[in-house]
Amino acid sequence: MATLIAPSNHSPQEDAEALRDAVKGWGTDEKAVIAILCHRNAYQRQQIRKAYQDLHGEDLIKRLESELSGDFERGMYRWILEPAERYALLANVVIRNANKDYHVIVEISCVLEPEELLAVKRAYQNRYKHSLEEDVAAHTSGHLRQAKFSIELLHAEVTISCFEIHFMQLLVGLVSTFRYGGDEINARLAKNEADILHEAIKDKKNNHEEVIRVLSTRSKTQLVATFNRYRDEHGISITKKLLDEGSDDFLKAVHVAIRCINDHKKYYEKVLRNVIKRVGTDEDGLTRVFVTRAEKDLKDIQELYYKRNSVQLEDAVARETSGDYKRMLLTLLGKH
Amino acid sequence: MATLIAPSNHSPQEDAEALRDAVKGWGTDEKAVIAILCHRNAYQRQQIRKAYQDLHGEDLIKRLESELSGDFERGMYRWILEPAERYALLANVVIRNANKDYHVIVEISCVLEPEELLAVKRAYQNRYKHSLEEDVAAHTSGHLRQAKFSIELLHAEVTISCFEIHFMQLLVGLVSTFRYGGDEINARLAKNEADILHEAIKDKKNNHEEVIRVLSTRSKTQLVATFNRYRDEHGISITKKLLDEGSDDFLKAVHVAIRCINDHKKYYEKVLRNVIKRVGTDEDGLTRVFVTRAEKDLKDIQELYYKRNSVQLEDAVARETSGDYKRMLLTLLGKH
Repeated sequence: MATLIAPSNHSPQEDAEALRDAVKGWGTDEKAVIAILCHRNAYQRQQIRKAYQDLHGEDLIKRLESELSGDFERGMYRWILEPAERYALLANVVIRNANKDYHVIVEISCVLEPEELLAVKRAYQNRYKHSLEEDVAAHTSGHLRQAKFSIELLHAEVTISCFEIHFMQLLVGLVSTFRYGGDEINARLAKNEADILHEAIKDKKNNHEEVIRVLSTRSKTQLVATFNRYRDEHGISITKKLLDEGSDDFLKAVHVAIRCINDHKKYYEKVLRNVIKRVGTDEDGLTRVFVTRAEKDLKDIQELYYKRNSVQLEDAVARETSGDYKRMLLTLLGKH
Repeated sequence: MATLIAPSNHSPQEDAEALRDAVKGWGTDEKAVIAILCHRNAYQRQQIRKAYQDLHGEDLIKRLESELSGDFERGMYRWILEPAERYALLANVVIRNANKDYHVIVEISCVLEPEELLAVKRAYQNRYKHSLEEDVAAHTSGHLRQAKFSIELLHAEVTISCFEIHFMQLLVGLVSTFRYGGDEINARLAKNEADILHEAIKDKKNNHEEVIRVLSTRSKTQLVATFNRYRDEHGISITKKLLDEGSDDFLKAVHVAIRCINDHKKYYEKVLRNVIKRVGTDEDGLTRVFVTRAEKDLKDIQELYYKRNSVQLEDAVARETSGDYKRMLLTLLGKH
């Protein structure tokens, strides 16, 4: 369930006028901006953007960017965008900051339904005039090339770890694929591929191609059946087993992919737990989960959070954040 | 230009009635079937299928399947389907006959525009309840697994050729990707990636990942710029260079991909040349080119054929085929 509280009817024109009042002249009425935009769903926000453009001849997003600042600005910017555009932006930020936060790309590829991911790829192309797959591939492999280059400079006899190549291949595979979205399960295939995954993980055989193939091409329903089968056969979940096997980039990405496909709500609970308990909260992570899930299932994630941490999510967020940013998050959580 | 001659207006109902007359009772009037269906475009054929279903309560395709036979039946079946469904069928036939004709999959992935390929992937999922990518990946890798198994049986110290793994990765990459469809060219990138391709081909370095990345993620316009740059720098086309380097499955697939992206009409002329000059013409290849290109650019391919072979395509086809199949092909070529 969603946490967002949005009125069933609203006037985009009135909202656009009220937002204009909030930003015009000296200073900005941040409370008013939050009270409006953080109580509107994706469709309503797009109506408001359009009305604002028609009435005032400027882009609401650009205007807010110049009026707001810091985490609050980044949060509002991400919140206003419609989902596909927002995911495109989130992916592009990761790509530009190469070699960090690639799990966000795995997350997007594995949490979204096939048609939603396709919409993100279209939005990405509209916005950046490249495909998401080429940017992911070029930037991760650029990182590899750079590593190779430094090694050559050192005249060292080191070869690039296969894991890094596999890491790139997994990422590109996950973003490229257009999975089947149906609910059919092939039980025999689930058994076969549970075995393939088991062999690949257990013996650290050179079977990463098979792990990549299974994770990046099978339907999500089929994969869940495969992971269940894995657990039945081996008495341990595949994610736990992976943790026992080490944590290079490739295995980490595999781990995130499986968690996102298996149960993305539990995955997001863990993301929140990690970003909150860090010294110096990771605001980007916090923002990402709130803006992408507030209209979807943040209430479920919130309940999982309480169950796991014995602390209410709103209390944790209230303690770790402040000012308008805090107000924005709590509003998205349905607490204002 | 197309070779298909279709009337600008027709009555789907009248066509459906005439087809019913042609197939009912003993024997079939194949000439009438050809005269109607091989003079209708994709949209008109779908209208006829619908009208036939409404009027006679049966599927025209199924009926024709039971009335016709041999190359003619396979040809009509493929011709009647709307393009996305037809490509899905062509791909599935290749997948089921594993280890043969994989170039057809490369062809589909590289000749079609991104949106067309996406339509094929949707049609494939509707028809087969799997994704195209998972079937390509599972069947090519199944072939690899089988090979590994035989090696284990022989207790031989042989490892699977990397080329076979790369072959699978290239195929899966090409069918998975949703390329950017815009016309922008980045000249610096074209130079960089022409160099990357050159290094990878020349030294037979272990750089197949880069070849796969470039070919399967860049936009077609960008790739053409890269291939042009290659030729400018090295005085030889990349396809010629590839031929000099050998012909394992991987290099062959790379060759087909580049030719299809660079100039698919020239590629199809070559396909026709090969299928016709074979001892025992390859009817599947002939059918494939005719049914997929008759509404698109078969006239251009025909001209290229004459220029290259000094023989008219219709004469070559008439010499190598016979009966209703011959009549069908020549009608699609605009010669009846």
